[in-house]
Amino acid sequence: MNADALTARLAADRARVDAGLAALFVDRAAPAPRLDAAMRHGVLVGGKRLRPVLVYAAGRALGAADDALDAPAMAIELVHAYSLVHDDLPAMDDDDLRRGQPTVHRAFDEATAILAGDALQALAFEVLARAGHPRLPALILALAEAAGRDGMVAGQALDLAAVGGHPDVTALATMHGHKTGALIRAAVRLGGLVAVDEADPRLAALGAYAGAIGLAFQIHDDVLDVTGDTVTLGKASGADAARDKPTYPALLGLEGARRRAAELVEQAVAALEPLGEPAMPLAALARYMIERDH
Amino acid sequence: MNADALTARLAADRARVDAGLAALFVDRAAPAPRLDAAMRHGVLVGGKRLRPVLVYAAGRALGAADDALDAPAMAIELVHAYSLVHDDLPAMDDDDLRRGQPTVHRAFDEATAILAGDALQALAFEVLARAGHPRLPALILALAEAAGRDGMVAGQALDLAAVGGHPDVTALATMHGHKTGALIRAAVRLGGLVAVDEADPRLAALGAYAGAIGLAFQIHDDVLDVTGDTVTLGKASGADAARDKPTYPALLGLEGARRRAAELVEQAVAALEPLGEPAMPLAALARYMIERDH
Repeated sequence: MNADALTARLAADRARVDAGLAALFVDRAAPAPRLDAAMRHGVLVGGKRLRPVLVYAAGRALGAADDALDAPAMAIELVHAYSLVHDDLPAMDDDDLRRGQPTVHRAFDEATAILAGDALQALAFEVLARAGHPRLPALILALAEAAGRDGMVAGQALDLAAVGGHPDVTALATMHGHKTGALIRAAVRLGGLVAVDEADPRLAALGAYAGAIGLAFQIHDDVLDVTGDTVTLGKASGADAARDKPTYPALLGLEGARRRAAELVEQAVAALEPLGEPAMPLAALARYMIERDH
Repeated sequence: MNADALTARLAADRARVDAGLAALFVDRAAPAPRLDAAMRHGVLVGGKRLRPVLVYAAGRALGAADDALDAPAMAIELVHAYSLVHDDLPAMDDDDLRRGQPTVHRAFDEATAILAGDALQALAFEVLARAGHPRLPALILALAEAAGRDGMVAGQALDLAAVGGHPDVTALATMHGHKTGALIRAAVRLGGLVAVDEADPRLAALGAYAGAIGLAFQIHDDVLDVTGDTVTLGKASGADAARDKPTYPALLGLEGARRRAAELVEQAVAALEPLGEPAMPLAALARYMIERDH
């Protein structure tokens, strides 16, 4: 898959999930309209839609139809969006900007941001349940485990505990493996589970791919925090260093961090080998992840 | 069912759900132990376990086995517990005491309380999915809808908006119908759905029962806030008036509020008539709800 084809594919998948997410907020009598507005703000303003794109690419690699991938793609983005709304809160990262726009608690208020995040999480499970896939128990379980105390939320907690501390590369990888890795792995797994059942060995190949790109993604994020500018990133650059947050460039040097990300992408691509041609877009996505500038 | 039999039944069901919830926190390697501790604090300290008790009673009324009711009972209590943790936050009700103990953000810190609530919500869906009931899609959907922007969270948002305002009885009922009513209705519905499928007319009877007791419960809560004392309630009495929160006693007078609650309980009991003898514990529960002193 060449760069132009990948770009077109990414744009089409983003448009598809954006349309699905937007549709969740129209033609409905919201009991609490301000809550709905805050949820919309949290999920519809910008975003790379990386996780939905991974759901589609992973699902297609194993033969799933696009229609069956829409609900998991939306569900995972809803969980991601809720986590950003809560992560930005004053008691957490206290961020004013997200995706170039005011964060939800700045655009609304703190209580509404807490509630909007809570409702986005519930909506993720609602969307997934409503789609009614035959393997729904496995899909719900994969999402709930990745989102909760053994996945993303644990990562957030480890991240908070690490500020001002001096974790080594292993501790940093454990934190990120939960904080961002769990949801990236879940995106790939949900896509795969739409196509095949849990015993299919191709899910293990997808799992190895997802583990490697999750870490590469985070290393690249840390690199961008050093090298990017605020306008391109849509959030304050240099924020990690300003908060004394541990980062890969701080531990490995800028070049060391870039090299590690590149190695991980090559591991990810190698893991896809048993899947053949249909997994080419996943390989292209892996490379894109460490080339993006925001 | 006489009062002693009901008391024994309630105690047994509470012990059952407490044991199930406690078991979620043992024999596991928590990636973020402090997060697990905060979740435990949020869910295991005290609590009437009213919603789980309703799951059991509603399920048994339609012939469900206790074993099949454990997961929905735990799931609904996990959602309830998360909502209390978030509701107590400084940006929300800013409460220091809950069930006679420090609230999670007082016992831990604000960020940890936000995360603990988030993880408790995810755990609710995880527990339900893991149980793998044949009607899992309907169970997940009932819980997610009741928890989210059309249910409990909408109620919280309406409640925030109402502070210092002057809603009438209808607006107050709408707010409570979402804030506490949705989850009480979901408890009864989950129990019912474990036993019978969605088309069964007995679910509608249970629905009418649940709608009435949900409102009676809230009216009685408002009455207790006026008449109870802080030690028995386990939280500050008179808190509603101090915050200028609209209440039923303020709108209907204390006796008017009590009378309304009693009428609703009689409606609830009448709705159970088609279910016969197996629904007697549900009727006893409805009466208990407006007799409890905390």
